[in-house]
Amino acid sequence: MPLILTPLVDIPLIQPGDPLAGILFRSVQISGLTIQEGDIFVLAQKIVSKAEGRLVDLATVTPGKRAVKLAAQVEKDPRFIELVLSESTSVLRQRPGTLIVEHKLGFICANAGIDHSNVLGEGGNPEDWVLLLPENPDLSAAAIRAELESLSGMRIGVLIIDSHGRAWRNGVIGISIGLSGLPGVVDLRGLPDLYGYRLRITTIAAADELAAAASLIMGQAAEGRPAVHVRGFPYPLREGSLSELIRPRELDLFR
Amino acid sequence: MPLILTPLVDIPLIQPGDPLAGILFRSVQISGLTIQEGDIFVLAQKIVSKAEGRLVDLATVTPGKRAVKLAAQVEKDPRFIELVLSESTSVLRQRPGTLIVEHKLGFICANAGIDHSNVLGEGGNPEDWVLLLPENPDLSAAAIRAELESLSGMRIGVLIIDSHGRAWRNGVIGISIGLSGLPGVVDLRGLPDLYGYRLRITTIAAADELAAAASLIMGQAAEGRPAVHVRGFPYPLREGSLSELIRPRELDLFR
Repeated sequence: MPLILTPLVDIPLIQPGDPLAGILFRSVQISGLTIQEGDIFVLAQKIVSKAEGRLVDLATVTPGKRAVKLAAQVEKDPRFIELVLSESTSVLRQRPGTLIVEHKLGFICANAGIDHSNVLGEGGNPEDWVLLLPENPDLSAAAIRAELESLSGMRIGVLIIDSHGRAWRNGVIGISIGLSGLPGVVDLRGLPDLYGYRLRITTIAAADELAAAASLIMGQAAEGRPAVHVRGFPYPLREGSLSELIRPRELDLFR
Repeated sequence: MPLILTPLVDIPLIQPGDPLAGILFRSVQISGLTIQEGDIFVLAQKIVSKAEGRLVDLATVTPGKRAVKLAAQVEKDPRFIELVLSESTSVLRQRPGTLIVEHKLGFICANAGIDHSNVLGEGGNPEDWVLLLPENPDLSAAAIRAELESLSGMRIGVLIIDSHGRAWRNGVIGISIGLSGLPGVVDLRGLPDLYGYRLRITTIAAADELAAAASLIMGQAAEGRPAVHVRGFPYPLREGSLSELIRPRELDLFR
C-alpha cells in the first residue's frame, strides 16, 4: 500500500481560541478527502500554538541578568532570550547567532522552538510578537484527536511537528513534538532479518519519519500548508507519546 | 498535489553485478506504476552496495593494533572494527556497544554504516559477511539515474538512503547518503514569510525529509521493500549532491 500525504486546503490563518479540530474537519471535506480508520493528521506546531494563544509580545517581557548577558553573547534580543530560558531546562551550546537548549518538554532544539516568523500579533509593534510551543503538545494532540474521532467516528492519530536543525548535517527537517494515537518509536528488536536467523537490533523513530515526510509536503514557503492528511502509515496505531522519542540524558553521547 | 510513496514489488535479492536500474525498471511495470517527469526513486543502501559487490568476508580481514584495542573497548569483533576504521576519518564517540565515526563520505554515523544484518555472503561462515556502503553513493545514484532516464525517457531523481541514529533522540530514521537529480537542501533564505515582510532564514534538508518518508514505507522488517517510487516531490529537481547536507566540521557544535 502506498503512503499518501495530502496537504489540507483552505485552512484560514489561525487565531487564539479557534476550534482547530472543527477547522480541520471542514478542510478535509473541502479538500475532497475522507477520514478512514488509521488515518493520521500531521499539524504544524504553529497552528496549534496559535489556537492555544501562545503568542507573546516581547514588549511585555523584562529580561533578567542571565538573559541580558547571554543575549549579548549570542547577539539576540534580551527579551527573546529571557523567553528562551524560561522555556528551557539547560543551555547546550551557544555562539553568536545560535542558542541550542534542552526544552522543558525534553528535546534539544534551537531557541526553545520560539518562532518569530509567520507570527503577527495584535497591538504594539507587530514585529515584536513571538510564538511559544504548545505547553503540552501530547495533550494538544490528544484533544484534537478526540474531537476528530468524535466528528468522524474513526480511530485516527494526530502528530504535531516542528522543524529542527540537527547535529552534523545542514538544513532543518520536520520532527515530532507531540503525538496521540500513533507510536513514537517502533521496536523491531528481536525480529528476524531477511534471512530469518539474525536478530535485528533496530528501533525505528516512526513518528519522526512521518514528521519529516509531512514537513516535506507542508513546505515552509509563504503560502502555508499547515496540516497534512496521511493514509497508509505502515505500522499499527497505538497510544504513544513524545517521551518515547527522547533519549535519556544519561544515554546521550552528544550533549 | 499529494506526495505519494509506493514501494516497488517483486525486487529479487540483489547479487553482486546485478543490473539494478533494469531490475527497478521492470519492477515499476510489475508494480503497475509509470515513470513521469519529476518522479524520484529512493533506494535502500543495501541493494546498491550489494549490486556493487561491497560484501566483505570478515575471515579475510586482519585487524591492526588500533582495531584490536578499540574492539576490546567497544566489545565488538576486531575484524569488524578494522573495517570501520578503514571506512572512517575519525572516531567521535565510543563506549561498549557503540562506535560513532565520521565516515570517509563526510557524514557522522555508527559503525561507518557497515551492516551485518540482511547480509549473507557465499563461502566461509555465512554469518561472517558484512556489507560496506557504496564507495561513492552520489556516483552510484547518477549511474542508476542515467539508465532509468534512458529507459524511461523521463527526467527523474535518484536518492540512496540508509538508517542512522541521531543525537538526543531515540530510534533510527532514513537519511540521505547519495543523490542525483534532486536538491540536497532547499534554500528559502531571503523569501518572505506568510505576512510578506519578514525574511525567512530557513534551509530545508529536503532530501533528508524524503529519505525519512521513504524509509517509513520501506520498513525494516523481514519482507524487505528496498525501493520506493515517489511522485509529488514539491521542489524543482536540479543537480544535487550529498555534500550539500554535510555540515562543515568547523561549523558543527556537536563533535
